[in-house]
Amino acid sequence: MASLQDIGVAAGINSLSALVFLLAYSILRLQPINDRIYFPKWYLKGIRANPVSSGTVRKVVNLDPRMYLRFWNWMPAALRMPEPELIDHAGLDSAVYIRIYLLGLKIFVPITALAFVVLVPVNWTNDTLAKLKDVTFNDIDKLSISNVPPRSSRFWVHIGMAYIFSFWTWYKLYKEYQIVATMRLQFLASESRRPDQYTVLVKNVPVDPDESVSEHVDHFFCVNHSDHYLTHQVVYNANRLATLVENKKSLHNWLTYYQNKYERNPSKKPAVKTGFWGLWGQRVDAIAYYTAEIDKLSEEEVAEREKVISDPKAVIPAAFVSFKSRWGAAVCAQTQQSRNPTTWLTEWAPEPRDVYWRNLAIPYVELSVRRLLMAVALFFLVFFFMLPIAIVQSFANIEGIEKVLPFLKPVIEANTIKSFIQGFLPGIALKIFLIILPTILMIMSKIEGYTSLSSLERMSASKYHKFILVNVFLGSIVTGTALQQLHQFLHQAPAEIPKTIGVSIPMKATFFISYVMVDGWSGIAAEILRLVPFVIFHLKNTFLVKTEKDREEAMDPGSLAFSITEPRLQLYFLLGLVYAPVSPILLPFIIVFFAFAYVVFRHQIINVYDQKYESGASFWPDVHRRILIGQVISQLLLLGLLSTKEAARTTPFLIALPLLTIWFHLFCKGRFESAFLKLPLQDAVIKDTLERATEPDLNLQVYLEDAYIHPVFKGGDYQRPVIDEESDPIIVATKRNSRMGSKNGSSQSSQKLFLR
Amino acid sequence: MASLQDIGVAAGINSLSALVFLLAYSILRLQPINDRIYFPKWYLKGIRANPVSSGTVRKVVNLDPRMYLRFWNWMPAALRMPEPELIDHAGLDSAVYIRIYLLGLKIFVPITALAFVVLVPVNWTNDTLAKLKDVTFNDIDKLSISNVPPRSSRFWVHIGMAYIFSFWTWYKLYKEYQIVATMRLQFLASESRRPDQYTVLVKNVPVDPDESVSEHVDHFFCVNHSDHYLTHQVVYNANRLATLVENKKSLHNWLTYYQNKYERNPSKKPAVKTGFWGLWGQRVDAIAYYTAEIDKLSEEEVAEREKVISDPKAVIPAAFVSFKSRWGAAVCAQTQQSRNPTTWLTEWAPEPRDVYWRNLAIPYVELSVRRLLMAVALFFLVFFFMLPIAIVQSFANIEGIEKVLPFLKPVIEANTIKSFIQGFLPGIALKIFLIILPTILMIMSKIEGYTSLSSLERMSASKYHKFILVNVFLGSIVTGTALQQLHQFLHQAPAEIPKTIGVSIPMKATFFISYVMVDGWSGIAAEILRLVPFVIFHLKNTFLVKTEKDREEAMDPGSLAFSITEPRLQLYFLLGLVYAPVSPILLPFIIVFFAFAYVVFRHQIINVYDQKYESGASFWPDVHRRILIGQVISQLLLLGLLSTKEAARTTPFLIALPLLTIWFHLFCKGRFESAFLKLPLQDAVIKDTLERATEPDLNLQVYLEDAYIHPVFKGGDYQRPVIDEESDPIIVATKRNSRMGSKNGSSQSSQKLFLR
Repeated sequence: MASLQDIGVAAGINSLSALVFLLAYSILRLQPINDRIYFPKWYLKGIRANPVSSGTVRKVVNLDPRMYLRFWNWMPAALRMPEPELIDHAGLDSAVYIRIYLLGLKIFVPITALAFVVLVPVNWTNDTLAKLKDVTFNDIDKLSISNVPPRSSRFWVHIGMAYIFSFWTWYKLYKEYQIVATMRLQFLASESRRPDQYTVLVKNVPVDPDESVSEHVDHFFCVNHSDHYLTHQVVYNANRLATLVENKKSLHNWLTYYQNKYERNPSKKPAVKTGFWGLWGQRVDAIAYYTAEIDKLSEEEVAEREKVISDPKAVIPAAFVSFKSRWGAAVCAQTQQSRNPTTWLTEWAPEPRDVYWRNLAIPYVELSVRRLLMAVALFFLVFFFMLPIAIVQSFANIEGIEKVLPFLKPVIEANTIKSFIQGFLPGIALKIFLIILPTILMIMSKIEGYTSLSSLERMSASKYHKFILVNVFLGSIVTGTALQQLHQFLHQAPAEIPKTIGVSIPMKATFFISYVMVDGWSGIAAEILRLVPFVIFHLKNTFLVKTEKDREEAMDPGSLAFSITEPRLQLYFLLGLVYAPVSPILLPFIIVFFAFAYVVFRHQIINVYDQKYESGASFWPDVHRRILIGQVISQLLLLGLLSTKEAARTTPFLIALPLLTIWFHLFCKGRFESAFLKLPLQDAVIKDTLERATEPDLNLQVYLEDAYIHPVFKGGDYQRPVIDEESDPIIVATKRNSRMGSKNGSSQSSQKLFLR
Repeated sequence: MASLQDIGVAAGINSLSALVFLLAYSILRLQPINDRIYFPKWYLKGIRANPVSSGTVRKVVNLDPRMYLRFWNWMPAALRMPEPELIDHAGLDSAVYIRIYLLGLKIFVPITALAFVVLVPVNWTNDTLAKLKDVTFNDIDKLSISNVPPRSSRFWVHIGMAYIFSFWTWYKLYKEYQIVATMRLQFLASESRRPDQYTVLVKNVPVDPDESVSEHVDHFFCVNHSDHYLTHQVVYNANRLATLVENKKSLHNWLTYYQNKYERNPSKKPAVKTGFWGLWGQRVDAIAYYTAEIDKLSEEEVAEREKVISDPKAVIPAAFVSFKSRWGAAVCAQTQQSRNPTTWLTEWAPEPRDVYWRNLAIPYVELSVRRLLMAVALFFLVFFFMLPIAIVQSFANIEGIEKVLPFLKPVIEANTIKSFIQGFLPGIALKIFLIILPTILMIMSKIEGYTSLSSLERMSASKYHKFILVNVFLGSIVTGTALQQLHQFLHQAPAEIPKTIGVSIPMKATFFISYVMVDGWSGIAAEILRLVPFVIFHLKNTFLVKTEKDREEAMDPGSLAFSITEPRLQLYFLLGLVYAPVSPILLPFIIVFFAFAYVVFRHQIINVYDQKYESGASFWPDVHRRILIGQVISQLLLLGLLSTKEAARTTPFLIALPLLTIWFHLFCKGRFESAFLKLPLQDAVIKDTLERATEPDLNLQVYLEDAYIHPVFKGGDYQRPVIDEESDPIIVATKRNSRMGSKNGSSQSSQKLFLR
């Protein structure tokens, strides 16, 4: 185990590496050529069109020495923007996301202060470890609960602290939930008019043999929401078309690449092989070849486009139904429409950018089978993921390779290569798996059939959180793979499990301290350097960019990647809560992480990230729940740890804590969660009334017309299929009927005709 | 352990006792004097006013010998009424309730047949038990899985059967859920107009310093449901008034008693003592005393009535809000009204008879604290209920009594009394506890704050189910109290628990067979005899009845007591599912129970019970869920049992079963449950349209006026406090505003004025 000094050295090294990253960043960001990598947000906002012009700034390299002297100034700059402006600039999702780091500070700074004032002296002034002859210990262990002798009445202090820490955490979590809920409602209330405010996504439209989907939807809502229904848009199955458009874009990139090449070196016409991946086949002129290919694809695309729009089978049984008022949409989204609760399912439409189009048409039975399969798959992924990796590793050793590819034998047997393979290959399978894991989880969420990008991210995050909990947290504490742990837990008494883990907790403090420094400190510093986008941008800039528009497209601002960063950051909450009453020495490292990450991510969302959608912080209930899961785990582990200390008199007082935590969760759920799921009618009425007063002549029909068309139709030559509704006898009859039914007078019906 | 012959004898004895009950019933029911005990339903329906008159029937005793010969004919008569008529006659709750017994038959008759054809030969043709020298066994054990040798490949048959039984159960459960859901929707659709169809219960109305609750509700719904809001009724806190009315009624009973006494024996004026319970105090004339007391109470009642109606503080922050259409009410019940999800809570109003008035005004925080406390209390009740009983028992022995009441010593020491106390007293504490247990659970549910009698019954049933599961089922299998079990389970590996219990399962078959016979067969036969109401009616009839109206009130038809009978009957499902693959010999006894109970309860709901409310079978999701809980338990126990048989090759195939059961539960929940929670808008529109077409001149306002007043005001001199709404400037302004806002023309506004 490491001593305090070792930890100091490790902290020094990690701080240094973080510092190097920061320095590199500070220098690179000042180069105008990198401006689009480190400040893409301003370009996308249209505020910046060129690198900042100052007297001495050149086009490529910045030589102004004064700017290098001020290279730290991005940090205060990142903190300067006030929150309302930040919400305006980067959206509520981002603004609330960085509040998670702030919440970490709010929770842990007072806890750390208290722990150092109270717990550290209580632990330090014992000599249990010094008395044990056969145990090596160090200063860090002397600061932890391990140093308190069994049956000591000092454990009352730890239990008291556990209660104080819990109450403080609940208080802060409650406050934060309240603030975020208010922010969300204010955000929704202050938003300008958006199509999704009037629109409901209707899924599982039942098949009607006599009517098209469009007619069926129209009739259903004319009857059941007669006073409020305005219009609807059917959804086309444009998956093949989207693939074609994608392919065409890639071909365009190649065409540009060869055109650039030719322009720069007109003496030699670029050529390309027509076979697989350009590796073999006939050699032809590249520019002519790609031009021809693009023409071919364009024709196909036009045909497919025609087919999708005209073929009634290309309409999937889902629709975006719009209403005359936000009230009407809110009502429809929150109520059950049909006797059969698996048809005519309504929910708030995600905003158009947020729709995940491929999942809109999954029937109920299929959906529940898919979710069952994915739940089983997740279980196996979490507990058995080591199995396939072990198999790959068993092949990826020297004997395995020599067996499969005997001709490589002389090369492999060379000493340097041999040691490289032996040292590196077994680990690489695991590394690759961990890198693609978020993608696997995202694919699983897509199979589960969620219909918006935001919910897909939330579900992936939830899966990733489980994986990290079992394989990183428990896996680091309890030796052995997750599979062995599972076996052990099944064959161990439930009351024994917290003991087994709890006992190991204090011993793992130094391990987690270095984890926090490596993964947390250096990881965040690497985040700001953006190495991957840096390389990709410069590659694209060199080979593909011709016009300013191309350069615009070469920019990759990235986004927050909630599904990856949030579960990782939950680990720090968990570590902080677990170690606060046990080994408070870990806490300062976590505080540094939260503070540093807060500044970096605030800078990134101001200058870099461009969110793909805006969900109005709908992820907060998940964040809140996961922190509470961490708290319950920490309380159970403390319970287990203390029960091994033979503190029989004191331990039972801890049993109430996890129960209270669960109750607090239910309390907050009832108190706040619906703000993230439903729009209160009161708010809808206020916005409707305001809008009617300020814009009495608004033509919503026109406004909503093309809001929810598949992105491949956007800006293209998409023609809405015209249905002459007023001549359709059924619709006219239904409308007349519903009009009479709702006892509305003639003036309203003319209103209706005008609106439609 | 009992042999097949012993079981036969026990079955004979129990059948005989059931037969005696039935015979007694058949004779008693023919006596005209008992007509109001055994056929109260017909009196309440107004179809019967006097005992059936036939030529030879006298007033008190029936002497017609022909009728005694036909004494069995109530059974076919009970089965003869077709289901639609039954629903009409007794309500959907009762009709669906007896379908639970029918479902038991549908599930278990084919399972029994299959088990006897396949499993019994497979078990019987082994000689494992015969080979074991030191074990006593009998024919019943030879029929069970215990007779199959370890590591036998015959276990494949048991596993296959477990799958077939499970699939069959799911199929029947799915069908039944579908049928009940359809019945419920048809019932709701075919119902005649009822106030609760238009009404929503609004709870947690926030306090407004400037307005009364009534005004606040009115303004809120005028604004937020401007086109649909009709009227509302505030709720008065009439708990004290209800107590006064109750007391007065009891005094009236005494007055009648003494008046009757005086009339029958005019020579002696009845006297009464004024002290506590009439035991001491001044001796006064009884009739004069009670008349004076009643007058005093009447005055108090009038004053309290006045106070409740005029005092604004007597209005609690809840209201029944009515809408112009079922559509409007359905929308309001299913949506969130306010930003703060703990205020303006809306739900479908229970029908007026179903409202539990005392719980309408509990704030959110208090409610969640109450639920936490009750959850903890239930845990202690289930696992620690033996503790207080043991304490009572330790006092209730001879030494304890002698210590507290030494003067009783000579009496107690007498031999017969001594043996009575020793044999009877320790058991009586437990008996009393078990009798009052449902009442305790109901009180706990009331503390939890549910607002309708139907939900109170459902919640009590859920608590009782847990109690039976732990203390009757597990308690009978695993020796020791529930507390010891809990301790054992906490200190045992999770994988060991099903093994421990599973192994004991086959050994307990004979115990459960006698349980089914005593509790099931004889219990049901006792139900039809109605001993307690029999005694009470005859007491009342002798002492209190003067007029026919009094006799009407002396009748106690009782009701189904869902909260008690349903959890008990769930035990039979559990036993059937657990023993089907293990000891099929239990199954015929359960089938007899279901068949017998079906006939008896069908007879009772036709002739006796009078339900206090009609919830439209809203309990079905609970019934469905509990049967599935039983199934999961049975599958886990089979898994545990087989894993002790060293059938390592076969056992893993059972792991999928509990997972599939849970998935089936989720699937059914999504598919059907909302039919029991929400009214689909489609159905609301159909009923609204129909009503408008058939009764265009309906004045709903008048119809709903007094629907939801507290029962103590019903039929009395209740005067609605008149609020001249049209002169209230705010309401008029709001209405005008909302009218303009919703762009309705002038003809509608006049309509509105007329309707209000």
